[in-house]
Amino acid sequence: MATERLVVVGGDAAGMAAASQARRLRKPDELAITAFERGHFTSYSACGIPYWVGGDVDGPDALIARTAEEHRARDIDLRMRTEVTELDLDRGRVRTRELDNGGRESWTGFDNLVLATGARPRRPGLPGIDAPGVHGVQTLDDGQALLDTLDASSGRRAVVVGAGYIGVEMAEALIRRGYEVTVLEQSAQPMSTLDPDMGALVHEAMCGMGIETVCGTTVTGVLTDTAGRARAVTTEDGEYPADVVVLGLGVRPETTLAAAAGLPLGESGGLLTDLAMRVRGQDHIWAGGDCVEVLDLISGRTRHIALGTHANKHGQVIGANVGGGYATFPGVVGTAVSKVCDLEIARTGLLEREALAAGLRFVTATVEATNRAGYYPGARPMHVKMLAERRTGRLLGVQIVGREGAGKRVDIAAVALTAGMTVERMTALDLGYAPPFSPVWDPVLVAARKAAGAVRAAGA
Amino acid sequence: MATERLVVVGGDAAGMAAASQARRLRKPDELAITAFERGHFTSYSACGIPYWVGGDVDGPDALIARTAEEHRARDIDLRMRTEVTELDLDRGRVRTRELDNGGRESWTGFDNLVLATGARPRRPGLPGIDAPGVHGVQTLDDGQALLDTLDASSGRRAVVVGAGYIGVEMAEALIRRGYEVTVLEQSAQPMSTLDPDMGALVHEAMCGMGIETVCGTTVTGVLTDTAGRARAVTTEDGEYPADVVVLGLGVRPETTLAAAAGLPLGESGGLLTDLAMRVRGQDHIWAGGDCVEVLDLISGRTRHIALGTHANKHGQVIGANVGGGYATFPGVVGTAVSKVCDLEIARTGLLEREALAAGLRFVTATVEATNRAGYYPGARPMHVKMLAERRTGRLLGVQIVGREGAGKRVDIAAVALTAGMTVERMTALDLGYAPPFSPVWDPVLVAARKAAGAVRAAGA
Repeated sequence: MATERLVVVGGDAAGMAAASQARRLRKPDELAITAFERGHFTSYSACGIPYWVGGDVDGPDALIARTAEEHRARDIDLRMRTEVTELDLDRGRVRTRELDNGGRESWTGFDNLVLATGARPRRPGLPGIDAPGVHGVQTLDDGQALLDTLDASSGRRAVVVGAGYIGVEMAEALIRRGYEVTVLEQSAQPMSTLDPDMGALVHEAMCGMGIETVCGTTVTGVLTDTAGRARAVTTEDGEYPADVVVLGLGVRPETTLAAAAGLPLGESGGLLTDLAMRVRGQDHIWAGGDCVEVLDLISGRTRHIALGTHANKHGQVIGANVGGGYATFPGVVGTAVSKVCDLEIARTGLLEREALAAGLRFVTATVEATNRAGYYPGARPMHVKMLAERRTGRLLGVQIVGREGAGKRVDIAAVALTAGMTVERMTALDLGYAPPFSPVWDPVLVAARKAAGAVRAAGA
Repeated sequence: MATERLVVVGGDAAGMAAASQARRLRKPDELAITAFERGHFTSYSACGIPYWVGGDVDGPDALIARTAEEHRARDIDLRMRTEVTELDLDRGRVRTRELDNGGRESWTGFDNLVLATGARPRRPGLPGIDAPGVHGVQTLDDGQALLDTLDASSGRRAVVVGAGYIGVEMAEALIRRGYEVTVLEQSAQPMSTLDPDMGALVHEAMCGMGIETVCGTTVTGVLTDTAGRARAVTTEDGEYPADVVVLGLGVRPETTLAAAAGLPLGESGGLLTDLAMRVRGQDHIWAGGDCVEVLDLISGRTRHIALGTHANKHGQVIGANVGGGYATFPGVVGTAVSKVCDLEIARTGLLEREALAAGLRFVTATVEATNRAGYYPGARPMHVKMLAERRTGRLLGVQIVGREGAGKRVDIAAVALTAGMTVERMTALDLGYAPPFSPVWDPVLVAARKAAGAVRAAGA
């Protein structure tokens, strides 16, 4: 029997998890695995970059889950600094270019192909946006470049463009490094992954931390000094001096290769797959990680969510299937958790605007409760907002803003959403209670009770 | 229309939650509410006593959720220090005795009766067990008496009998007050609410905290000094000097009145109710809190679980039904969380011995993972043990021992159990991920993956 050939494009979480899982199931004489990575690093935690920049984590080594050498030791032929430039699906091969070797090109054939090309940061085409001192934070190389700028600069003013996950995490990182931080956000509130009323709580807390947070403003460009370095960010409303500028505008799927090969893309430009993570309509092409769209189990639509935890699961599923096993990725409920300093921010399920767009009618309930028994040291207020479908009372989404212990409570709702639970049923959930952990009514239960009341009040 | 009469026996969580909820739904001219409490306090958090004793909480006032005066201001006729001595169900009345008023007796009629008589601590009939210096910690009065002993004593040696929830929490409290603490436990490991392999992790951690933990030993009595005060605890194996002795042997339902009235009791002596918390076979008698048995949704049996969070839910349900609304308490999955110093201990669902007793066949999986991304500051190991049913792969139980952030992760499993989820389905749960909160694979997911593998390996 001829050795089968698996080719992986992209050496980060999804690609290398697929390769590793396939290798666990099939030996080198059965399956040859070749992986191409155009960057300097494999299997790293991009989500950890803000904590590296902030000084909490020694990087970049600590952020690397498995090095190229470790992958090679497991019989994965990993080619670093090698870019895949073309997919030839008809002939089952990919064209590659070695970035450090005079651009030498060659073709590699495959029986199964895994596309794990990741995402690229949104970078608006504005004047000065490419000036030195303006940094994205998508890759370890980006993180190192930002740290070099910070180390070289004597200034102390930072502007972060975008107040989403990356934006607020980078704001924290820069505050910890002693910078005066201004965050500029186009939406009316920070964290547009929350409803505006919950985003307002984040806004208030950020201001309390000394982070100047300017919302509802559009960045128009970056001004440079005589040496060509960034010195200020301009908006429609004014100018913000900056010794360093960090872009936190989110990412979009990197699917240039896939698009050129005619593979199916969704509304956000991500690859579309079946439940086994096989590209739709293809027998031997698989895709996972930040370059795909995933099924949102609540809205019934596909959406793009760039998250390391999904990428790892995708890789695991692909590797199992390519390795002769069976696994699926059933979809997501849209869970995310983040923090800015000691403020924890979490969501799962649908926001109001997302529920409306999905054709759902709903009621909402927002409560303020404490993370622990009110009398226990460290008890702090936390807010929980809950959306429930009218008539059925089915849970549709939860948003949480609070301090220690608030964020991961979103998992309660994530499981309830997955199970299609009603808020009425949730009121009786048997959650862990002891004074250091929760009030007798956990804040999620308090929200469920209020939401259940709202469902009854709304009637048919 | 004549005013209906609701009588409540017991003024703590279940009783007063029932009274308060009924009052919310029905005005005083429709429903007269009389509640009898034999102690000095109402609506208090007994679960908070260890933190009061340990000095973390100013008690006892902080532990009182609502005072007698506050209840009376809401038109609840609350009679403190008044004991109900007999239930006359045929004539619909209860006999009471005023403890502070020369023992004056009288009868009070009811249309609906709520039994919320709570639990009483287990206190083995051993020599010396009633000596001064030996303390239970079930009521606020108990807590105050213990604190008086601690304040009056110049000694520094404490013995805690029993290493269950109360025992380990009291061990922490006494350590915080500067005592040398010995915990004596009859079982082979502390926390017999966990499987022995998980209890062993608690044992090891307690020893690391300087708590001498002696397991597999049977207490035979308490030795007293010439003044008749406790000076040591004796076991089959030796003698443990003690300036103070704390009993943490758990509780049993206080159902003396109910038994005398011929009401149905379960195997652990708790009242049996229907899903609306009405005593089985009775139309107008309700019961909730620590004096009832609850349906365990996983084993299908009733069991006794004394927990404030259940008591509050029971009261809420009873009050809604008595108040003309509708609510049920569907049952529990057996969730509990506790801590001893910085060690968090949690369980939900069934232990191995409980699953066997329920007639279930299962596989187990235990994993060690970290509470946060391994590289993030404060990442600490945590252990998760998972039981899954053979063939079906349905989750049966989870036990967790770890540090910060470990305990409340049990809620993930509590919701999954409630939903009847398989461990295979759990492997794809969309849980909150960010480096300060979790590794890319949350420890619960890691355990689910291993358990799912064990289910497959076990075959049919």
